[in-house]
Amino acid sequence: MIVLVTGGARSGKSALAEKLTLRNAESAVYIATAEARDDEMSARIAHHVARRGTGWHTVEAPHDLAAALEATDGQGPRLVDCLTLWLANCGSDADIGGLVDVLKRQRDPVVLVTNELGGGIVPDNALARDFRDRHGWMNQAVAEAADQVWMAVCGQPLRLKPARENDDFL
Amino acid sequence: MIVLVTGGARSGKSALAEKLTLRNAESAVYIATAEARDDEMSARIAHHVARRGTGWHTVEAPHDLAAALEATDGQGPRLVDCLTLWLANCGSDADIGGLVDVLKRQRDPVVLVTNELGGGIVPDNALARDFRDRHGWMNQAVAEAADQVWMAVCGQPLRLKPARENDDFL
Amino acid sequence: MIVLVTGGARSGKSALAEKLTLRNAESAVYIATAEARDDEMSARIAHHVARRGTGWHTVEAPHDLAAALEATDGQGPRLVDCLTLWLANCGSDADIGGLVDVLKRQRDPVVLVTNELGGGIVPDNALARDFRDRHGWMNQAVAEAADQVWMAVCGQPLRLKPARENDDFL
Repeated sequence: MIVLVTGGARSGKSALAEKLTLRNAESAVYIATAEARDDEMSARIAHHVARRGTGWHTVEAPHDLAAALEATDGQGPRLVDCLTLWLANCGSDADIGGLVDVLKRQRDPVVLVTNELGGGIVPDNALARDFRDRHGWMNQAVAEAADQVWMAVCGQPLRLKPARENDDFL
Repeated sequence: MIVLVTGGARSGKSALAEKLTLRNAESAVYIATAEARDDEMSARIAHHVARRGTGWHTVEAPHDLAAALEATDGQGPRLVDCLTLWLANCGSDADIGGLVDVLKRQRDPVVLVTNELGGGIVPDNALARDFRDRHGWMNQAVAEAADQVWMAVCGQPLRLKPARENDDFL
Repeated sequence: MIVLVTGGARSGKSALAEKLTLRNAESAVYIATAEARDDEMSARIAHHVARRGTGWHTVEAPHDLAAALEATDGQGPRLVDCLTLWLANCGSDADIGGLVDVLKRQRDPVVLVTNELGGGIVPDNALARDFRDRHGWMNQAVAEAADQVWMAVCGQPLRLKPARENDDFL
């Protein structure tokens, strides 16, 4: 079972992902891709840790996310928070296809958090456009492999996959 | 009855909010949080006033939105347009929790307009990131208290709350 | 039949629009509004051409989209990719009302791709804000005339129009 949770900044993605991860479990593995490089990032991480509370075992995987997934399969549901930071950490070395292959092999559930980055005006600089492009392709590839895709908006969950009554349209 | 209407810039949020406000009423109170500080903002306000037409009584509340809500309870449905400008006007003094408490006490309906700000790439400067964070938390807090949450996209209404058939998923 | 497909950058809009265009047809007309002015844009165009494959006849219409629609009516379904570039190419000369009138007169189906541009923080410069405003109004006008409106998120289709069970709300 692969679940992707997307949404804008401060849309309630992580809280929704935590809820989905613990649907049928009392504890879970939290796979953190963030690196606490500065005070702002440290504060964001502390905020998330405080909300999660107990019942979570944390594994840090800023770069080798595939290995962390393989190593934790069998330990119950995993929450990966988040794909955006993983892609940023890996730069152009990110092996998105390899990650999707590993995801498909997992026996225990994996819930992954990502971001909506493409909804604003076109960024001025080419590096930002390139990251936005690769990020969008990553989101599409993981969503294609996922059993469920959700978007958080104002903290409210919107289910995108499985879709509702689209069959007569598509 | 608390209704939150979100959406991107020029997505048709205000028109949707006006329609929702007048569902069961012929007149309503318009609580404006905008301040006409420059020509561009004056033009935006004039555009909205022209579209609303008659049947609206306008109250200005760029800062003390809670007091405006208390003062107008009993006068029929209210439309607050918009929370984003209220938060910007109040700066770090904004009492979001206090606003939510007042909203929950209202007997007449309140429809509130807000914005989706978190869907683009991460802003370069820390002030914009901080505003985006506080704005997202505000949206989540008001949506949590709301009976209905809508998102306007290309002028089309998408209902987020009450959610559709999610019960077997969440 | 008019179909509008919106979504953020790299959200899978074009692939969804191609699928919708070919629902009941084996070939279609691709009306391209892009101009290959630099290497980056050339690469984006080549990427789209490669994905579309055979079965498409391409017509270029960076400015006079209405004429291209009139000229191709009777040749089967048309895919316009995309309205955002058309608006940018035309600048303030863009005749949105005229385009909508022409769309309503078409006998063969037209699928149009556009973008969600209004979901980020407010742009710093007035030109970007002005383009974002006009773009949003264009999206609303075309969506109002459309029989179907879809949003792509992470490559997943979300139907906005016809809406689901909103009748008891709106």
